[in-house]
Amino acid sequence: MTSAELTAQAQALTDAILADIPLNRAMQLRLHHYDGERLSFALPLAPNINDKGCAFGGALVSALTVAGWGLVVLALRQRGEQCEVFVGESTIRYRRPVWDDFRAEATLAEGADWAAFFTDLDTHGKARIDVQCQVPGDDGEPLASLAARFVAKRHSH
Amino acid sequence: MTSAELTAQAQALTDAILADIPLNRAMQLRLHHYDGERLSFALPLAPNINDKGCAFGGALVSALTVAGWGLVVLALRQRGEQCEVFVGESTIRYRRPVWDDFRAEATLAEGADWAAFFTDLDTHGKARIDVQCQVPGDDGEPLASLAARFVAKRHSH
Repeated sequence: MTSAELTAQAQALTDAILADIPLNRAMQLRLHHYDGERLSFALPLAPNINDKGCAFGGALVSALTVAGWGLVVLALRQRGEQCEVFVGESTIRYRRPVWDDFRAEATLAEGADWAAFFTDLDTHGKARIDVQCQVPGDDGEPLASLAARFVAKRHSH
Repeated sequence: MTSAELTAQAQALTDAILADIPLNRAMQLRLHHYDGERLSFALPLAPNINDKGCAFGGALVSALTVAGWGLVVLALRQRGEQCEVFVGESTIRYRRPVWDDFRAEATLAEGADWAAFFTDLDTHGKARIDVQCQVPGDDGEPLASLAARFVAKRHSH
């Protein structure tokens, strides 16, 4: 797929997320970037703020989770797979407070591999994949990082 | 404190959460129960739903995180401590889909101890405590469970 096609596909998914998941609408999540390997959403601070004036931890973990979910859904769509994708477990580290608008980015985790994932899906109709998500900081160090495992299941027809 | 005083204190905190954290307002979080050892919020499914018609993982983890945070804040207030409380890290397991209105409950984690926490706070002006949170299922098994570590820091005056 071309870069424009990847962006259009990610924008269609973002539109569906906003239509179907009221909480992401409340968070004012927008597509920032997608290149087939990294999916990045942008979020304003105001609807995601906490009592201390920085981003609410629940908003950070929600945004990171949906970025990871989106990365897996888009990879499946590119291969014509009709699957349900859900998050199985995740661990988040809140490293530093987030005082401004922020991004939630997802890539494959180190050691994770789309080829193995799609082989499992072909064999079992179900597969797991580990995704690494982060809120990047201005200095290159993440403000928050999330390791999440997603499960894809083929629709039974 | 009497049971009524504990409830009033938890209701005041819930009111503040709803006033200060727009995302919790969007989630329509309400106080369900507080007895000094367990804090429980109730949430309707509708504002927290996902594309599959069950609760969005990001809503579950947000609700569980704020329940854990509230448990720590209330314990500090009962001892007259003026602290900032923030979540440091957490791990969530999404065990089964949540198809209905749900609760997010927090208690101390096994092995965690308020006495040790308050001793650390006295000594260092800062302390950590582990909290266990869950979305209870009808059969007593959790639908989702979150282990979270919170940090309290005394306000510097």
